[in-house]
Amino acid sequence: MQKKRTERKLIRGHRQKAGEKLAELGKEVVEEIKNARPPKLKIPSRSTSNIIYDDTHRYFVLGPHHSARSVASMKQVRKFAQMMCAADFARELIESGKFATLREMYYTAEGWEAGPFSDQGESDLIIEDLEATFGLKREDLGLTPEEDGASVFGKLVVDEEGVTIDATKAGRAGYTIPPTIDDVEFVKCKAKRIIAIETMGMYHRFVQEEAWKKFDALIVGLKGQAARATRRFLKRAHDELGLPVYLFTDGDPFGFHIAMVVISGSAKLAYINHELAVPDAQFLGVTATDIVEYDLPTDKLRELDVARLKQLMKDPRYSTKFWQSEIKKMLELGKKAEQQAFSKYGLAYVVKKYLPAKLGLKG
Amino acid sequence: MQKKRTERKLIRGHRQKAGEKLAELGKEVVEEIKNARPPKLKIPSRSTSNIIYDDTHRYFVLGPHHSARSVASMKQVRKFAQMMCAADFARELIESGKFATLREMYYTAEGWEAGPFSDQGESDLIIEDLEATFGLKREDLGLTPEEDGASVFGKLVVDEEGVTIDATKAGRAGYTIPPTIDDVEFVKCKAKRIIAIETMGMYHRFVQEEAWKKFDALIVGLKGQAARATRRFLKRAHDELGLPVYLFTDGDPFGFHIAMVVISGSAKLAYINHELAVPDAQFLGVTATDIVEYDLPTDKLRELDVARLKQLMKDPRYSTKFWQSEIKKMLELGKKAEQQAFSKYGLAYVVKKYLPAKLGLKG
Repeated sequence: MQKKRTERKLIRGHRQKAGEKLAELGKEVVEEIKNARPPKLKIPSRSTSNIIYDDTHRYFVLGPHHSARSVASMKQVRKFAQMMCAADFARELIESGKFATLREMYYTAEGWEAGPFSDQGESDLIIEDLEATFGLKREDLGLTPEEDGASVFGKLVVDEEGVTIDATKAGRAGYTIPPTIDDVEFVKCKAKRIIAIETMGMYHRFVQEEAWKKFDALIVGLKGQAARATRRFLKRAHDELGLPVYLFTDGDPFGFHIAMVVISGSAKLAYINHELAVPDAQFLGVTATDIVEYDLPTDKLRELDVARLKQLMKDPRYSTKFWQSEIKKMLELGKKAEQQAFSKYGLAYVVKKYLPAKLGLKG
Repeated sequence: MQKKRTERKLIRGHRQKAGEKLAELGKEVVEEIKNARPPKLKIPSRSTSNIIYDDTHRYFVLGPHHSARSVASMKQVRKFAQMMCAADFARELIESGKFATLREMYYTAEGWEAGPFSDQGESDLIIEDLEATFGLKREDLGLTPEEDGASVFGKLVVDEEGVTIDATKAGRAGYTIPPTIDDVEFVKCKAKRIIAIETMGMYHRFVQEEAWKKFDALIVGLKGQAARATRRFLKRAHDELGLPVYLFTDGDPFGFHIAMVVISGSAKLAYINHELAVPDAQFLGVTATDIVEYDLPTDKLRELDVARLKQLMKDPRYSTKFWQSEIKKMLELGKKAEQQAFSKYGLAYVVKKYLPAKLGLKG
């Protein structure tokens, strides 16, 4: 119970902290105006030249550069005002305990004194400015993605504002990670690891073959590129529950990168990777070596695949010996393979043979 | 309890019936071989000329044309053999109570005596042949889509093989309709209607504003074009629970068609629309009339939108006065609007004002 209460505080803390930062911002701006000084903000630059791969953290971070946004500049005054309106919108969300999507904010802005945005790209940038300035996720400001996160099946019990959900009893399709994942409390977990899977076809195979029992695992169905909520879930489960995270994707450059974005974050979200990246997560395949060893059915690499693989070879996130050798091997093979290719040996093979061998467990 | 038992039988019945049809097929083929006659099959034609809009049923059905597939034809013998292998694969799935994806079957075929398929398109066609021949869904044969269906939030309790799930207690993201929806039993339902919503952003708005309480409704988040499992869920909820179905989509040709495919099925699935279409389902907006009446923020119709709207005007599913007038009006306006455009009047407006007006309820 003690643990439970502490965690609850932590959760409330997330949005509360965002609220405090907003209040500080407002106070500073008012102060400047009272002193007849034009208010200005220091916003971390998100331009490519300021995105740096941090070897210690093992993900992209923002460098030291900032840009100033000041009311004193005619060019910036409208943007400044829109940022204030967005901050006020976020304050309202936090105070009422509500959430909105970026799209809803864009339309809400139709009624703002600072005037509407010309397109959603513009309003999204304002929110990114706030995120980067505060070092907080937009979810903490009450602005959630449209889409839900991944599906989870396994021995995990969570609490969502008083509603208890057991991820073995939420239906065959599992428990769905909501966009508001930081409001979710981990109540009990008997799993010892997480196996996150690229495709829902393979996720359902793992659930059906009871891989969650066999491997004492939470099975997570990523649905392709992992949503922000999914990445946050994986990070929290890793940090708070101490679960190692394994990533099982297709054996092609897009599968590799689905895993890598979970592991090392994206360059685009450098300002928030400290809340999302799981640098200790491990790639479980399908590798070029697997293609050969298991004699998997393959497809030829398309031109796009080859170009992408060559790009990955130069990416600092893929600088390890493992990745360099696997990418080189795939280019030499000229072939790629999907997760479901293991069905060649029967539907259960992937759970009964492949995974145990990869995890170093008995079959 | 009596009801429960009857329903259970019904559910078992679905796959059992498929199993019986497969056994019949096998028996016929063996009989022919024993009598030294080349076995042949009569497969309903799915070519465009045999897809007919049925005014009585209010969805597309297959016409009277069939094609023959016979072992006597050298051209057809491989396809015939593959169809037998696929039927055998389905029999195994039914007997073991398992499910597989079309993709898994494609890879499993690598080991078939009839030889592998050259691509998945080919193996999918074989399954469609079986579906059309039997008038059964491929899900009944044990072949499920990759993706899960929609999210559901509201007063519905279901049973999935002994696991009871309350769709108000499966998490904020709701209960996810599994690909195996026909194995799901409706245990209890206190909702009086279904409101199905195109985007997950709006779905979460409805859940957050407790629209499920306010309108005694199951809120269904379609995630764009409704998956087969979602359409089957809507049909079953309509037929078995007697719930009227309302569809709330964006006000553009793609939104219209997301609704229409739920209502009247697709031409492509004419052979199975009797299991999927909900002809009594009602479109709830956003209409061209709404755009004017609510003075909604809009986007200009793109060339693609205009072409699509003109196409819809000629589609028999859109032949009603309502659709003809709304499509004409949208073309005249030259504008479209999204569901979330109502945020112009505040986040809760769509639930507090728009929906009650549309449903003819008090706000």
